Amino acid sequence: MSEISRLLDANHGYASARANVRDPKPSRHLAIVTCMDARIDVFAALGLHLGEAHVLRNAGGRITEDMLRSLAISSHVLGVDTVVVMQHTKCGLAGVTDEQLQAQTGADLGFYPILDHAEALREDVDILTSAPYLEPVRVISGVVFDVESGEITDVVRVERH
Amino acid sequence: MSEISRLLDANHGYASARANVRDPKPSRHLAIVTCMDARIDVFAALGLHLGEAHVLRNAGGRITEDMLRSLAISSHVLGVDTVVVMQHTKCGLAGVTDEQLQAQTGADLGFYPILDHAEALREDVDILTSAPYLEPVRVISGVVFDVESGEITDVVRVERH
Repeated sequence: MSEISRLLDANHGYASARANVRDPKPSRHLAIVTCMDARIDVFAALGLHLGEAHVLRNAGGRITEDMLRSLAISSHVLGVDTVVVMQHTKCGLAGVTDEQLQAQTGADLGFYPILDHAEALREDVDILTSAPYLEPVRVISGVVFDVESGEITDVVRVERH
Repeated sequence: MSEISRLLDANHGYASARANVRDPKPSRHLAIVTCMDARIDVFAALGLHLGEAHVLRNAGGRITEDMLRSLAISSHVLGVDTVVVMQHTKCGLAGVTDEQLQAQTGADLGFYPILDHAEALREDVDILTSAPYLEPVRVISGVVFDVESGEITDVVRVERH
C-alpha cells in the first residue's frame, strides 16, 4: 500500500468516526479493558478513532464486578461483540500482595494483585467466558502492553459461535 | 502568549512525559474517572500527555467500589491528589432505570443509572469526599462533557486541606 493510500485509509476511519459522534454504539463493536496507568494512551496505542470502541479502565485492567456490569451494557445494549483485556508491564499491581496494598492504603479491600500476567489474563478471560450475561460477546482476547516499547504481546484468545 | 510559545510549551509537556515513561506516578498527580463511551478520547479532550494522569473508566463514569479500590492505590501509592469525575451528555445510563437495564441485559446487577447529571455528580463527589481511605486527595471535581461539542461544564468542586 502506498503512503498516500495509507493516509486516505486513515482519514476514512477518522471521518466516519466524526460523522457518527451521535451514535453511542461503538462502530467496531469493540470494548477494551485496561489499566488506569498514566502511561497508556489507549487510542494512540491501538490506533483507535473516536466512536470505535468502549474503553474501560481500573487498577490493573482486571475483570471486576464493575467491569462485568459495564460489559453487560456494552454487549446487550450497545452492540459490542469483541472484548480485549490489555494488562501491561511495570504495573503497580504486579508483584505485590493484598496485604501490602491494604497496609499502604489503609483500605480493607481486595486489590486484584497480579502474580503473573499470563495467569491473570487467563483468569480474567475465563471470568468473561463464563459470565452468564455476556452471550453476545464472540471474541475475548488477553494481551500484555509493554509501557516502555509500546508493543503488545498476544497471550490468550477465545472465539465462540 | 505567541503561537511559538504555545508550541514550545506544549512540547515541554510532551517531552517530559516521554522522558518519564519509566515512572508509574502520574506527573500531574491527577486521576480522571469517566465513562467507557466510545466518543470520549480522554487525552485529546483534556489535553493530557502520556504519564500525566490515571484514567479510570466504567459505564457512566460512576464511583463504584472498583473505582474506590483503584483510587486508593492512585492516592496512597502513586501520589494522586486531584480526582476529576467526568460524566457526559447522551450517556446510555441517563434516563433509564435499573429494571430496564436488567431486562435488556439479563443481569441482576445494580447499574448506577443517572437521572440527573448534576445530582449524580454531587452523589459521586460525596462518596469520594467521605471515603475513609482517600485522605491524600485534596481536590475533587465533577464535570459534564458534551460528546457533540466537546465542551466541559463545571458542576461541583470540593477542596480540602
